[in-house]
Amino acid sequence: MIVGALCIRDGKILMAKRNIHPRKGLWTLPAGFMENAETLKVGALRETMEETMSEAKVIMPYTMFSLPHINQVHLFYLADLLDENFGPTSESMEVKLFSEDEILWDELAFPTVERTLKLYLEDVKTGNFIFRDEDINLW
Amino acid sequence: MIVGALCIRDGKILMAKRNIHPRKGLWTLPAGFMENAETLKVGALRETMEETMSEAKVIMPYTMFSLPHINQVHLFYLADLLDENFGPTSESMEVKLFSEDEILWDELAFPTVERTLKLYLEDVKTGNFIFRDEDINLW
Repeated sequence: MIVGALCIRDGKILMAKRNIHPRKGLWTLPAGFMENAETLKVGALRETMEETMSEAKVIMPYTMFSLPHINQVHLFYLADLLDENFGPTSESMEVKLFSEDEILWDELAFPTVERTLKLYLEDVKTGNFIFRDEDINLW
Repeated sequence: MIVGALCIRDGKILMAKRNIHPRKGLWTLPAGFMENAETLKVGALRETMEETMSEAKVIMPYTMFSLPHINQVHLFYLADLLDENFGPTSESMEVKLFSEDEILWDELAFPTVERTLKLYLEDVKTGNFIFRDEDINLW
């Protein structure tokens, strides 16, 4: 179970450039393996802190993906980034807020990150944020 | 990751009396551990077949629970039961459709089953079925 967060601040999206394998050097939403004794929300916010040094507040569960080819489930929360005191950590070489025009679509680390960003940008247009449960099967 | 289904047929809820430990002899919604190489939906419908011998069609993800005290996440889909050819299996000593008045509240196997049933019966009244993400912490 991978938990992460799409953190928003003034309409911009918080992303981290991975400093760890796999996909080192590519951009991701903060996310990682859920740990023992934590809830989904606590895990998502812990990963956000570990990868971006920032605090966020969960708004809602936003995207959930089954990835049967790698035996994983990915869950991303939509969250408010609480301040702009973010920065790199041992896990991230760079942390940045991206507007829609700035997103580096060719340098994204994972398909579930790309899909979550696309859904978010669609939902921003309508103002209606919907929880999605999708399968991504790369077999 | 535990996946299961709240299967509905003519307004009644499909439940199974467990023939396996833990909670043998208590009533549950069909559910169990997600297996490798399956999606959440496939896992929920497989468990439904294994525990009730019946086929169902997923309507929507319905309840998701973090249970940090046992390092589990439970996800239940709302589903349509496709026919009434259900019956006991090696995992279930009895399978039955319950109307609201018939639910055996004192003989339910798991807190997430009880909570899912309560939320469903609330939503039936309004006709508005909402995905829920809740924590159940029994520490």
